[in-house]
Amino acid sequence: MPTFKITVAYDGTGFVGWQRQANGVSIQAQIEEALRELDGRDVTVIGAGRTDAGVHALGQVAAFTIARTLESAAVARALNGRLPPAIRVIAAEEAPAAFHPRFDARAKTYRYQLWNAEVMSPFERDYTWHLPGRLDIEAMDAAARLLEGRHDFAAFQATGSSVATTEREIFESVFRISEPAPRTPHLAPRTSQSQLLCYEVAGSGFLRHMVRIIVGSLVEVGRGRQPVDWIGRVIAARDRTLAGPTAPAQGLFLVGVEYAAALAAGS
Amino acid sequence: MPTFKITVAYDGTGFVGWQRQANGVSIQAQIEEALRELDGRDVTVIGAGRTDAGVHALGQVAAFTIARTLESAAVARALNGRLPPAIRVIAAEEAPAAFHPRFDARAKTYRYQLWNAEVMSPFERDYTWHLPGRLDIEAMDAAARLLEGRHDFAAFQATGSSVATTEREIFESVFRISEPAPRTPHLAPRTSQSQLLCYEVAGSGFLRHMVRIIVGSLVEVGRGRQPVDWIGRVIAARDRTLAGPTAPAQGLFLVGVEYAAALAAGS
Repeated sequence: MPTFKITVAYDGTGFVGWQRQANGVSIQAQIEEALRELDGRDVTVIGAGRTDAGVHALGQVAAFTIARTLESAAVARALNGRLPPAIRVIAAEEAPAAFHPRFDARAKTYRYQLWNAEVMSPFERDYTWHLPGRLDIEAMDAAARLLEGRHDFAAFQATGSSVATTEREIFESVFRISEPAPRTPHLAPRTSQSQLLCYEVAGSGFLRHMVRIIVGSLVEVGRGRQPVDWIGRVIAARDRTLAGPTAPAQGLFLVGVEYAAALAAGS
Repeated sequence: MPTFKITVAYDGTGFVGWQRQANGVSIQAQIEEALRELDGRDVTVIGAGRTDAGVHALGQVAAFTIARTLESAAVARALNGRLPPAIRVIAAEEAPAAFHPRFDARAKTYRYQLWNAEVMSPFERDYTWHLPGRLDIEAMDAAARLLEGRHDFAAFQATGSSVATTEREIFESVFRISEPAPRTPHLAPRTSQSQLLCYEVAGSGFLRHMVRIIVGSLVEVGRGRQPVDWIGRVIAARDRTLAGPTAPAQGLFLVGVEYAAALAAGS
C-alpha cells in the first residue's frame, strides 16, 4: 500500500474550495474521484491547506495511500488523465506511510494579487482584487514587514474560528509591484509601473482567512486611512474588529508548502 | 454625430470571435448592444481585425458614430458599465468621421503563446498551445526571421479565402522564450527556462489564419521535422498544403493596431 505525496496546481474559479462539501465541486473530491477510478476503491486525500472557494494553488500538497503498486510518474500521469484541466498534478513522489501534509508542513507560502488600475484586465478578473485609485505601495510594504516574526495573530482570524493557539511565525512578509503578466493590456492611464501588485507571505502556518485579512488591512494603509504603525497596534489588540476587511478570495494563491528534507525524500 | 475610436481588450474564450454571427455571442455584437443602450438607437461597430473564436485581444481597435454628444472618457466608462468583464474598453478618443479601423491601419501586432512542458498550467489552458517535448527555439527564431520583409504569403492563408492580393509586409517576426507569468507553477521537470514561449509578429496586414499557420509551420521546424530554410521554400511555393498545420486559436492575441499620427489624434 504505497503512500504518495503530490503537488497540485489548480485554478480555484468555480470550485467550492479544496475541501469536500455537499454544495458543490471541491478539488479534494475531484482528486478522490480520479483515484477511485485508478485504484478501484475509495481513497482519502489529505491536503496541506484548506483553500476557500475561488482561491487558487500553484503548489498545494496532498497525500493518499493506494492499493496498486505504481511508479510515482505513472500516478501523476493517470491522475492528469482523469482530472479536469483546471486541476493538474505537477509532481508526485512516494512518501512514508505516516506522512501528513498538514501536520508535517514546516512552512507555507501564499501570494495575493491586486490589480491597481481604473480598468480591470479581462485576463486578471479571476486572479486579482481590482483596486482602482492611488495606493501607497511603500507604506504597504513597511506595514507588511511589521507582521514578520512570532506574533499572536488573533486579530487576523475569521470570526468564529476555534484553534488551539493563534500564535504563528511569519518568516517573510512583503508587498511589492509585480512584473507584468505577458498578457497585460496597457490600460489607460499609461504609466511605466505595472498594474499588478502582490503581497507575498511565508510562515509556519496560517489562521483561517489570515492572508486575506492581512491584505485587507494593508489596503487600509495603502489608501492612507491608517498609518503604517497601526498594523502593530492591531496585532497587539488581538481583536478581529480592529483589522481591515477580508480581501476577496480570487486574488489568493497557495504558492507552496515546505517539509523537512527527510520527509520530502520519502525516506 | 461624433465618431469614436476605442481600444478594446478581451478574453476571447467562449465568444464566436470578433464578428457578429448567428450561432453565438460575438465581441462586436456585445459592444453594439452596449452602444444601443447608451445611444438609444442601432450603432454599427467596425473593428480593425476579425479575430476568430477563442482568439484574444490586448488592443483591438474599433470605431463607431453615435448621436449623443459625450466626452470620450464618458464613452469608455459607459461601455465598461454595460459590457461583460471579459470585454474592456481600455481607451477611447474622438476620431474623424472618415476613420476606418481596418482600412486606415498601418500595422498590426500579434502574439502567439505556447506552453512547452509536459504538464499544462491550469492558468494557461485558454491562452496557450500546449506543446510538450523538445523544441529547438533557436531554429524556430531563425525560421521566423525568414518571414520578415515583403512576400507573397499565399502558402500561409486559410484555404477558401479570396483576397485581392496575398502580398503582405512583415516588419518583425521573432520567436523567443517569454518571461514567466506571475502565476506560473513550476511544473516538473524543473528547469531554469520558462515554459512559456511566444511568437511575436508585426506587419502591414495579415491573411486569414496567417499567424496561426506560421506558428504551425515554425513548430515543424522546432520539432526537427523540417530545416530552418524550409520556411523560405514554403513562401516561394505559395502552396497552403506545403505549410504546417493551423495552430489552435486560444494561443493568439491581437496585441495592437497602429495608425498614422494624424488619424490617431482625431484631426
